[in-house]
Amino acid sequence: MINDAQDAFGHAILDFHLRGQGFEIIERDDGLFNLSKGPGLYFSRYPDWPREEQKAIRYAGGRVLDIGCGAGRHALYLQEKGFEVLGIDNSPNAIRVCKARGLRQARVLAITQVSRRLGVFDTVLMLGNNFGLVGNERRARWLLRRLAGMTSEQSLIIAATRDPYETVLPDQAAYHARNRARGRWPGQARIRVRYKKYVTPWLDLLMVSVDELRRLLRDTGWEIAKTLRGEEGRYIAILEKARSKGIRRRGMA
Amino acid sequence: MINDAQDAFGHAILDFHLRGQGFEIIERDDGLFNLSKGPGLYFSRYPDWPREEQKAIRYAGGRVLDIGCGAGRHALYLQEKGFEVLGIDNSPNAIRVCKARGLRQARVLAITQVSRRLGVFDTVLMLGNNFGLVGNERRARWLLRRLAGMTSEQSLIIAATRDPYETVLPDQAAYHARNRARGRWPGQARIRVRYKKYVTPWLDLLMVSVDELRRLLRDTGWEIAKTLRGEEGRYIAILEKARSKGIRRRGMA
Repeated sequence: MINDAQDAFGHAILDFHLRGQGFEIIERDDGLFNLSKGPGLYFSRYPDWPREEQKAIRYAGGRVLDIGCGAGRHALYLQEKGFEVLGIDNSPNAIRVCKARGLRQARVLAITQVSRRLGVFDTVLMLGNNFGLVGNERRARWLLRRLAGMTSEQSLIIAATRDPYETVLPDQAAYHARNRARGRWPGQARIRVRYKKYVTPWLDLLMVSVDELRRLLRDTGWEIAKTLRGEEGRYIAILEKARSKGIRRRGMA
Repeated sequence: MINDAQDAFGHAILDFHLRGQGFEIIERDDGLFNLSKGPGLYFSRYPDWPREEQKAIRYAGGRVLDIGCGAGRHALYLQEKGFEVLGIDNSPNAIRVCKARGLRQARVLAITQVSRRLGVFDTVLMLGNNFGLVGNERRARWLLRRLAGMTSEQSLIIAATRDPYETVLPDQAAYHARNRARGRWPGQARIRVRYKKYVTPWLDLLMVSVDELRRLLRDTGWEIAKTLRGEEGRYIAILEKARSKGIRRRGMA
């Protein structure tokens, strides 16, 4: 559980919700500072989502767990469509905004706190690069197995990430090499979010190529059913239970 | 002279010049992170300037020194009007952009490097909060005296600053108290600019109320002739040589 001074992400969302302004600075551990597209992006509506996200959300169905729900853009969309959605985020202010915007089930929970106690889900949403919240290889495997144990046999994970080798940033190759030298995956970015005086703890965002994702999924109970390509290396993988044959479209798909 | 890794300001300007994108993070020494309105602001044209700036620039005339010229918006405007303008900035990339945009006289120089060797000026421009570059009380007095020695008897300084007591930011009072406790002026902000991996050295920006400005000018050879009020405590002071009687409008005014 993060404290208020650490809730940079949530305060940016809250300010955007209340006053239509805010920014989100991403500081990487090698001293690289950038701006994300948030918080405005976290309030975007279906027509403004990237094509692959519009396609991916159609795979959602049944009872939905939205991990890292932010301001609730995906959760609210699915709730309006009649699905039961639980949004979780480790940011108290993000959850506060989700509730204010009408999300009926929203809880302050980190990704590592998901468990069978939340009930059984049919869809796990990890959109907006949120698959990266698995953090690192070891934690990813542990989490994927845990998710396998709290989802129905027909369930899907909708996982958005970014192929780290498709980006053309000049610093990228050097950062990958730095990671390799430290025994980390090349696409493992250690970052923190800053907004005004708020700063989150350092966290790892794991970005993986499709090959790396396949390797990561081995023996976790999940496999890739489909990938939807976006721009600049972004893609969304639809993951299904490993034993099942072929992808099952449910819900609106 | 700053090196390339320190030229955060200039790289943001250069990227905006080349690709129309860029941002400027302002980090204050108490851990406050904000975004400036740059670099887009530094390319703005006369019709988009705040009213007080449009009024203030009409006091410019003769040979003009633009201190901290950035992307050259004021210098280029005056050059087009037919005045001789020297733009100086301590950012090599800012000066590179000024030259690319057609500013005929542009040099990489810090404010502390101005001297009689640059010749005699009739107008000194310190717009866009650039009066703050005087840094602190002691340096301000030294610089103002130096500027008095390199300007004509009829010369004016057009100095933009911000009344630190008119801002309503919640952190502001605490920062003022912190400054007082350290023997600094309340409106003395220690900041650095970040852009991607570039980060400037720490620098002091001195923001003063009109009363404080009057106190600062004492025995420097300058006095306030007029102030033009803007929004959120911003104002532009027209400074003239202390002995002279009344403000002289020259140039287009």
